[in-house]
Amino acid sequence: MAQSVELLRSPVLPGGFIAAGVACGIKDGGKLDLGLLVSNYPAVSAATFTTNRIKAAPVRLSMRHLKGGQVQAVFVNSGNANACNGKRGGKDARAMAAAAAGALGLEQRQVFVCSTGIIGLPLPVEKIQEAAPAIAKKLRRGGWRDFSRAILTSDKCSKIVSARIMLGGKKVTITGSAKGAGMIAPNMATMLAFITTDAAVTAEELDRATKDAVSASFNCISIDGDMSTNDTVLVMANGAAGNRPLRPGSGASRIFRQALARVMLELAWRLVRDGEGVSKFVTIEVLGAATQRDARRVAESVANSSLVKCSWNGSDPNWGRVIDAVGYSGARVDESKVDIFFNGIAGAKGGKAARTPITRLKAAVAKKEFIVTVHLNLGGGSHRVFTSDLSEGYVAYNRLEYALKIQGR
Amino acid sequence: MAQSVELLRSPVLPGGFIAAGVACGIKDGGKLDLGLLVSNYPAVSAATFTTNRIKAAPVRLSMRHLKGGQVQAVFVNSGNANACNGKRGGKDARAMAAAAAGALGLEQRQVFVCSTGIIGLPLPVEKIQEAAPAIAKKLRRGGWRDFSRAILTSDKCSKIVSARIMLGGKKVTITGSAKGAGMIAPNMATMLAFITTDAAVTAEELDRATKDAVSASFNCISIDGDMSTNDTVLVMANGAAGNRPLRPGSGASRIFRQALARVMLELAWRLVRDGEGVSKFVTIEVLGAATQRDARRVAESVANSSLVKCSWNGSDPNWGRVIDAVGYSGARVDESKVDIFFNGIAGAKGGKAARTPITRLKAAVAKKEFIVTVHLNLGGGSHRVFTSDLSEGYVAYNRLEYALKIQGR
Repeated sequence: MAQSVELLRSPVLPGGFIAAGVACGIKDGGKLDLGLLVSNYPAVSAATFTTNRIKAAPVRLSMRHLKGGQVQAVFVNSGNANACNGKRGGKDARAMAAAAAGALGLEQRQVFVCSTGIIGLPLPVEKIQEAAPAIAKKLRRGGWRDFSRAILTSDKCSKIVSARIMLGGKKVTITGSAKGAGMIAPNMATMLAFITTDAAVTAEELDRATKDAVSASFNCISIDGDMSTNDTVLVMANGAAGNRPLRPGSGASRIFRQALARVMLELAWRLVRDGEGVSKFVTIEVLGAATQRDARRVAESVANSSLVKCSWNGSDPNWGRVIDAVGYSGARVDESKVDIFFNGIAGAKGGKAARTPITRLKAAVAKKEFIVTVHLNLGGGSHRVFTSDLSEGYVAYNRLEYALKIQGR
Repeated sequence: MAQSVELLRSPVLPGGFIAAGVACGIKDGGKLDLGLLVSNYPAVSAATFTTNRIKAAPVRLSMRHLKGGQVQAVFVNSGNANACNGKRGGKDARAMAAAAAGALGLEQRQVFVCSTGIIGLPLPVEKIQEAAPAIAKKLRRGGWRDFSRAILTSDKCSKIVSARIMLGGKKVTITGSAKGAGMIAPNMATMLAFITTDAAVTAEELDRATKDAVSASFNCISIDGDMSTNDTVLVMANGAAGNRPLRPGSGASRIFRQALARVMLELAWRLVRDGEGVSKFVTIEVLGAATQRDARRVAESVANSSLVKCSWNGSDPNWGRVIDAVGYSGARVDESKVDIFFNGIAGAKGGKAARTPITRLKAAVAKKEFIVTVHLNLGGGSHRVFTSDLSEGYVAYNRLEYALKIQGR
């Protein structure tokens, strides 16, 4: 359903939103590392956060601000997660919100703050405070691209997606931007995503629509199975399009939900494609599970198996490792019923090797994007997870971080 | 306790056991790939098996034979797991048992069979049948070394461990051999282990002692989090030492249990040290958890995090990734109480960076073997897991297997 919504070739910011990105000196080499996104009007807001029990200070602060009702600005830094910094972390997160509020003439509780980067290093908040007035002056509709670059960490490129729909005769735009790259696991990835729309939506409807869309997109991707302390998805709806506010259950709301889900799914896919060291984009499709829960267990077990991911990196149609991960997933499995396909070509039928020539299987897995289908032939449960291979590049990228950053302390 | 038992510098096979290893042609290049281990007397036997719901045919057959009571021979091939081969797999496993039984003059149900290697390729059982008479002729006390080499797959070296204890004035030997290398996860690794002893032990005591020792050794190691279809630990006790049969609760049985646990723990450690691409041996020690279960969850979460394991590979004391994995383990955590140490040197205290100079932390993690201690400061739960780094070598080794093996089919 969601996939039928058309995306804009040139993403644009919805009406009533402005943005900017600057380099404030957290990252070396003058890289953009501070982003500000503002709605000209109070915006109905909904969000989902990491389920990690260790939550970064800005996550805890933004959870409180979100309860206050209407968020009007998002202030984000990259290069430092402001996680595990004790009481100082909370103080710095509040100082960051205060700096944006001061520069914009807003209440502190109207500012949502996010940080992403290394865990356990104190945030150089004075750099953010100094840069706040300047970034506020740079705010404009076209500032979205700089904002999207300023939130990146190890991502190779920024990710911006726009959809346009008609709601009650009004043109409505939904535009999102996200960052990811490592620490990507189901149930929120190491990621930030900011979705803006000029639709008018009731708070109740936006909350439900956001949760549903996140569960079918960002919660279905996995790169390395690690879930971060900072994951956040925020949706802001400012009503600038002038449509009648969307309520749960209405026809217009159905269209809005589809478009919101489509934008999030596209962003989630781009996060996987741009994951650290990723050379393959793989969809794990589980069918015929005894229950929905079993289907999810099997898909995640396969998606998080290091051995399976290594085999994809080598374009090896190693269905034996796939069925091994199916077996230890905890789901009900009858070995003699398991079928495994690579792009629809049978690797295993009834729990043993299919009679497919190996050249055909290899050709399927040699593609940069392919689907691994696991059919358990037990019931109606199904689930999809979007994931990647595990490469030497991933290891090389992640073997040294903390000691480098902390050098000279 | 178990660690106080002394191991023999030169391992020897206990009295009444003989063994052999030959090359039967499953592996290329004349490598040893078939092992036979025999007790001259009926032996009380106990075993634990993979909990993977996809079990290899030889595992299913050996589970049945074990119920028959006394196993007297173990017939093992490497290079092919005989897993996921449908009905033919079961037939081939039975043929393998029959071949050994015929060559040894035993009943088929007295033979325990094991296979290890690639999943999903039919077992060339005729090669095993042809080699059975020849390997039976080669059986002798000194054949243990060939046996230990014949069971290896991607292992770089064989692992043999012996302990000697006195039980009621009789000299008792416990000797074990194991193979591992990849697909190593808690709750049995991709591994086979065969432990022999000339102690006289009741079936009940041997079963309990085996389960306890496995749970404190092989079930506490993790290389890549993948659990295989073939994992098996078998203990055979033939009573040749002439001691009074050990019963649960006796003082002699306590000594026996310690020695058995020590042999298994040493084998488990050697499996980790010889894991695919392993350059670091890391002990994860969790203290102060609210419950034992929480302690295990935290230890396994840290041990299986790709990001944490990459940082060890780079000798990076990245405690932020460790605390992140603690946070998503599902265990109760109070961030402000978490302490993390590398070889006893504090990386984090109270959930934030400790004031330790980075050079000291780096020196600890630069060692080939070190301990990561996570103290949750919540209760009395503790657990240890033995694990490794994740290297580019692991990925390079595992990226191509099935397509290579199947070439020219």
